[in-house]
Amino acid sequence: MARSLGRICKGFQRLGSLSSIQTQLRQPSTSVSVSVRGTTLIRTMVALPSLFSSKPRDFSLPNSSWGSEMMQLYEHYNSQCEVETEGGEKQEGPWRRLPSYNRLLKYATGGVYLSKIIQSKARLFTRNIRDPGAAFEYVLFVNSEEQKCVCVFQAGHLLEGPPGHVHGGAIATMIDTVTGTHATILSGPVMTANLNINYRSPIPLGSTVLLESSLDKKEGRKTFISCKVTSSDGSKLHTETTALFLSINFSHLLLGE
Amino acid sequence: MARSLGRICKGFQRLGSLSSIQTQLRQPSTSVSVSVRGTTLIRTMVALPSLFSSKPRDFSLPNSSWGSEMMQLYEHYNSQCEVETEGGEKQEGPWRRLPSYNRLLKYATGGVYLSKIIQSKARLFTRNIRDPGAAFEYVLFVNSEEQKCVCVFQAGHLLEGPPGHVHGGAIATMIDTVTGTHATILSGPVMTANLNINYRSPIPLGSTVLLESSLDKKEGRKTFISCKVTSSDGSKLHTETTALFLSINFSHLLLGE
Repeated sequence: MARSLGRICKGFQRLGSLSSIQTQLRQPSTSVSVSVRGTTLIRTMVALPSLFSSKPRDFSLPNSSWGSEMMQLYEHYNSQCEVETEGGEKQEGPWRRLPSYNRLLKYATGGVYLSKIIQSKARLFTRNIRDPGAAFEYVLFVNSEEQKCVCVFQAGHLLEGPPGHVHGGAIATMIDTVTGTHATILSGPVMTANLNINYRSPIPLGSTVLLESSLDKKEGRKTFISCKVTSSDGSKLHTETTALFLSINFSHLLLGE
Repeated sequence: MARSLGRICKGFQRLGSLSSIQTQLRQPSTSVSVSVRGTTLIRTMVALPSLFSSKPRDFSLPNSSWGSEMMQLYEHYNSQCEVETEGGEKQEGPWRRLPSYNRLLKYATGGVYLSKIIQSKARLFTRNIRDPGAAFEYVLFVNSEEQKCVCVFQAGHLLEGPPGHVHGGAIATMIDTVTGTHATILSGPVMTANLNINYRSPIPLGSTVLLESSLDKKEGRKTFISCKVTSSDGSKLHTETTALFLSINFSHLLLGE
């Protein structure tokens, strides 16, 4: 175990300061960084670009599969990421788009038969299918002032549960992704401790929905988040969730504790 | 909407009695069937084989990616699906393996831009990647007498959430799958109404875990199920869940209500 951590740390040292990645993330390193033995890392729920490619694909940018509802909502929030002052100068707006990649820092200690494969093949669950439009198409925006996150999510045909509708687990996956990312931005490295999801109405496959996440409270190591999933125009409630996240020491996770 | 339902019913009529599918499922049609305008159907959470292939792949059977823990647990339960009497005759045992396919009856009414693609390309979320070992490898067994289900689940490298560990949403997906299938067997067609998941310890990518689902109670339209996820030897608790399912009229789902 100790040897594993040694390898992990060497791997991290090779990454240097990760400043280029932080720049891409366009968010304060203090809000999503975590220290392991003096080396600054980006936290788990905010996926990192591939270390083996100079131009990793940012999955949160529009592609040809995005329908009109997805595009409209994307443009609505994206247009508020940069605003013009009265003097005509551009400055940061209230919202910030979060880039999204399909690879994390992969240093499994607990994997058994897959341990070698994990090193090279592991992919973020929500970004493991590259075919545009087939599975999870989504983009997250964060509003730090209002302590809110929104996610525009278009559910592809590979997410089927009940006939013609999105699997309850795929919905839970997006809820965990959005609330977990939000909790990370608010509290630094966290792990999901509880998800309490009420499913109100099924989501048709192929439709675009909106996830809205807001901070309820912070108590010590605990961050409480609420999340609603609604139709893209907000008229139909699909799910209501409360989520609890616990702040963690990142090295515990790497050690599988 | 009415025209859509007409198309749906015609599609169902072409399926005839679905007796061949019921035979493959090897479970009483009364426990998982549902009637829509006089036509008997298998309910949603128990996936149906492709209608376009005479030999659909049963994903619940062993493949080369299954590790030793997965195989041992599979053989443990599978050996109890058929037992020998004192006279040396074979008869049904306490457990029954549930086959698993990657296609459902697909008649979406609510899909927007993907509606045509859905008709041909939709796949069950948990079976949408054919590469053995890459994502969800699992097999379910049901014990009707004890009103229990177990699922042996090996988590592949494409399910990553926190570095080297399974995404909370992927775990929720398996919990929804197991408890939903169990509720269907107990109560007929249902929809997930609530999942309350407590995450106790992360699951390393590549490991094999056991999901155990048991009936808590039935009250009118409500079926309450509990589910634990543990390490394969039962020594470590990964998650604890209570789940609530509501019995539904299948036609409501098809109409997107």
